[in-house]
This record gives sequence, C-alpha cells and structure tokens, in this order.
Amino acid sequence: MNEETFVKSLAGLLKQGPDVKVGPGDDCAVLDFGLEELVLAAADQVVSGVHFVKGTPPGAVARKLLNRNVSDIAAMGGRPTHALVTVAMEPLSEAWLKDFYEAMQELAAGLGVSIVGGDLSSSKAEGQFCSLSILGRVKRDSLCLRSGAREGDFLYATGLFGNSFASNHHLDFKPRLEEAAFLAGRFTRTMIDVSDGLLKDARRMADASGLAVRLDPSAIPLRDGASLEAALSDGEDYELLLAVKPALESELLGCWPFKNVGLTKVGCFAAGPPGEAFNMDGARLSSAQKGFDHFDG
Amino acid sequence: MNEETFVKSLAGLLKQGPDVKVGPGDDCAVLDFGLEELVLAAADQVVSGVHFVKGTPPGAVARKLLNRNVSDIAAMGGRPTHALVTVAMEPLSEAWLKDFYEAMQELAAGLGVSIVGGDLSSSKAEGQFCSLSILGRVKRDSLCLRSGAREGDFLYATGLFGNSFASNHHLDFKPRLEEAAFLAGRFTRTMIDVSDGLLKDARRMADASGLAVRLDPSAIPLRDGASLEAALSDGEDYELLLAVKPALESELLGCWPFKNVGLTKVGCFAAGPPGEAFNMDGARLSSAQKGFDHFDG
Repeated sequence: MNEETFVKSLAGLLKQGPDVKVGPGDDCAVLDFGLEELVLAAADQVVSGVHFVKGTPPGAVARKLLNRNVSDIAAMGGRPTHALVTVAMEPLSEAWLKDFYEAMQELAAGLGVSIVGGDLSSSKAEGQFCSLSILGRVKRDSLCLRSGAREGDFLYATGLFGNSFASNHHLDFKPRLEEAAFLAGRFTRTMIDVSDGLLKDARRMADASGLAVRLDPSAIPLRDGASLEAALSDGEDYELLLAVKPALESELLGCWPFKNVGLTKVGCFAAGPPGEAFNMDGARLSSAQKGFDHFDG
Repeated sequence: MNEETFVKSLAGLLKQGPDVKVGPGDDCAVLDFGLEELVLAAADQVVSGVHFVKGTPPGAVARKLLNRNVSDIAAMGGRPTHALVTVAMEPLSEAWLKDFYEAMQELAAGLGVSIVGGDLSSSKAEGQFCSLSILGRVKRDSLCLRSGAREGDFLYATGLFGNSFASNHHLDFKPRLEEAAFLAGRFTRTMIDVSDGLLKDARRMADASGLAVRLDPSAIPLRDGASLEAALSDGEDYELLLAVKPALESELLGCWPFKNVGLTKVGCFAAGPPGEAFNMDGARLSSAQKGFDHFDG
C-alpha cells in the first residue's frame, strides 16, 4: 500500500462526532463549537534525523515545529490561538530545553499563540522527538478546504519551491498567515499548504475535489539552487496552493499587496482521473515515493 | 535544578492570552471560549523503553496513551471530547499502526472522543514515540484544580497504589472518569491524577494550595505485590487524589456508589512549608528523584 492510501485507510477508521465538521484528511480538523467562528485543530512533529539534522540549534527546531503547524492553520484561512507541545529526548538537556522553549515562546507571542501545556519525557533513543498540537479559529465564510476546486479553476502558488533543506528554508520560513487571511473567503475557498511537495499536494487538492490537475512546470517559481524536480517533489516549502476562479483572477492580481511574496499561476484543475497530475501537453506527472517524511537529515 | 523546579521554570516562560483561565502546571489547561462549559486541553506521550517495553502490543500502547490523557481530563472534573495523535517510529510498520489506530478508535468511541487528526513520521531511532493531545469540557462549577485545598481538608484517594508496571496496571487501567464526575463540584474542587507517584502528586496539590500535606502511610491501599515505598513513589497509578472538607466526609462516604473502587482517607492538608509532606508523627516524607518519567522498561 502506498503512503497516501495507507494514511487514508487509517483516517477511515476514525469516527467523528457531530461537532466535527471536517475530520482527518485536510490541513486541520474543523470543529463547530457553536461559536461565531469555527475552531481548527492540527498536530505535527519534528524528529531529529528526519526533519532536522543533529546539532540544529534548539531554537530553530522550536520555530520549525510551531511554524509548520501555523502553516496548516493558514491553509484553512485561519489564525492560530493555542498550542500544546511534547518533547521526548535523550540525553535530557536543560540547556537544550530552555533554548527550545524560549524560542518557541518568542515566536508564539508574535503570533498571538498561547502555549498552554505539554509534556517532557526521557527517551532510550538519542535525539529529540517533538510534537505540537495547535488550535486556531476561522471565520465561517473564510474556511478553506482542499476540496472545492472546480473544473477550470486556476492553480496559484505563493512563493518559491524546491531546495528547502539545503537552503535552510525549512528552518526559517514564515508561514503564509497574512497572505492566507487576505485570500481566504474573498479570492478562494480551496487551499493547501505545501509540506510534502508541490506535485503531491496539488494532487491532493485535485483528489479531494474529484478532479485532475494540470501543471505548467515552466511556470513554477524555483528557489535558488532548486531544480524543477526538486521544486515538484522536495517538500517543506510551506507555501500555499490555492484554486482561483478565472473571473476573480484579474482582481486578485491587481490588488495582491505582498510585494515580497510572489503569487504565480502554476496550473489549473481539469476533468480527469481524480488526483492525477498532467503537464499542459497531457503527459502524466508522478512524484517519487518518499515515504512518510521528506528528508534524510 | 530538580525536575519539578525546572519544569516550573519552563512553564514560567510561557505567557498566556486572556482566554486561558489556567495555563501550564495543572493536569489540563483551562480555556474560556465563552461557552456554557470551559474547554480543557492537555498533552501527554508514551515512548518505547520508557512507558512501555519493546514488544508491547500496539493496541495496549494506544490504550495507555489515550487513557493517560483521559485521566488528566478526569482530574479536572471534565469529560474528553477530541484528540490529536502523532507517531514517529522506526521501523515503520503498517501492521503496528493499523492495530494501534484500531484499538485507539475502539476506546475513543466508548469514551465519546473523536480522533480528529494527527501525523505519522519515520524516525532514525528504533521504537515508537507517540504523543496525544486531548480536548475536553467541564461545567464551570465542577472545575477541579490542584490548588484550592484548605487547612484541615482531608486527602482522599481512589483505588490502589504501587506495582503498576509489574502488574501491567499501567497498560490496562480505566481512567476515573465516572468517579471524577461524581465527585467534582459536589464533593471537591481540588483533584489531581496520580501519574508520578502518590507522594509526589500529593505534594504538588499541597504546593499549589500553599500548604503542607500529612500522609498516613498505613492507610494507603496497596495494589497486590506493592510495598509502601512502591505505593508512594512508583507512579502510573492513574488514580485520583482529592481534598474533601470534613463537613462533607460522612455524606460522601454514605453515597459513594462505586462498589469496586475504594475511596480511602490517606491524609490531610495542614499549615506548613508549601509542598512538603509529613507522616502523622510529623516526620518528613520525601520521594526519590526519578527524573522525567517513571519506569525503565
């Protein structure tokens, strides 16, 4: 079974209560507590040797952990509110933990996030295993899901792709919160954050929308040092992909206010086998299987 | 710095927003979303070689992970509602994960918990690193904190103590949700769940309440095979400790409806150095430093 199919099979086991508007399978779960806004919830982890190399400063690890969760909140059109953090590590280092929590608190304060709890554990395995759960809020009419793209919608992307690891982008990116808040509701209801590679995440949007996706490889904006293959498959870009209706395109391009963040049309959604990707000539694009995570650090 | 002091120093770094009624340092954080009930949030982990031995069935690992979080919700007087789960493991085993998620879903369904999301990651270290964040709800007038004991309050405990690991209690306990719901608000507003040992957790209640605690070692109900030292210090009992006002004692004992769960007076709160424990003769009781977790599996 490939990763995608297997993870779907696990998610299929999980039964959701009546207040769960969206369960596993999107960037966040969506909970309806009867508040004016919906509640968002997601969890993600960073593991030494997988998401960061040994010797990475603890502050950089903390920022990556919080930021990649915030990127999931952004992709739903929301804002982050609260986080819970667990760390298992060997050897237990007070200095490491102090740097980690100080950096996380500094970032959280800027984001308006309260770190409300967590747990520390020893481990028998060398390294750090850090997990973070995030809560957020989103206006009901701004909620963005992976599904909802329509045939003919354009696929837009923020920022640059590829070479995230070697360039250290994966450690010092800024999640697209402001950009998402600008886009969500007004210009799109369909977004995803690119953590597993542009190609794979575009295919997920297409799959969730019951469509195929056509990509224009020549249009994909490359990070310095990135090949096209890297831009398609590396992952950890933490950019947004979004569906834009053709009727809204010129207004969007005319008022995009983020001078230092590109907004690029990289393809469109089309009728076809759900979740499959093609280039503009109709040739199938497929991504290398990279297992459950992205890098070998 | 000892564990208790160090963890407090980390928690002290974390600034809380206005909707956080209780931040890090209790069994759960308490969030006030303006709903009729308060929202509870906590996170805990189980790590191979620390919280379970190699070869423990994945279903037992899943149940322990969910139940120990539910025990934190119970100690606040609440009920669990939603969970997020992350797993990092090496080797990645689909069979292990399927058993883990099936068992967790079965338990969650019985508890009324929706598992709304999470993450899977590979790891470079052999074993499993599992983290779970839980959300819950509690009636405003049932909320129980560690603080709030008054001088002269009795210290009561549910169930039995000690020998949790050898007896496998740590894998197959039932969190005291029903018992806590019966107690919270009506008979107590001060509870804690015993995860780190009766002595340490009783001292935490006393410390949070600005009092000392007197324990009657001869009164502590021992699990089969447990020594008094084990009952005081082993941890992973997942029982409740609660403060009971003398005026409520006879009513409580007269109507305790749980025939198979003991409710035992094990001490009382007294004026004295905050967080210190004494026996009934006034001799100081101290617990062995066991680091950040309880067992060497």
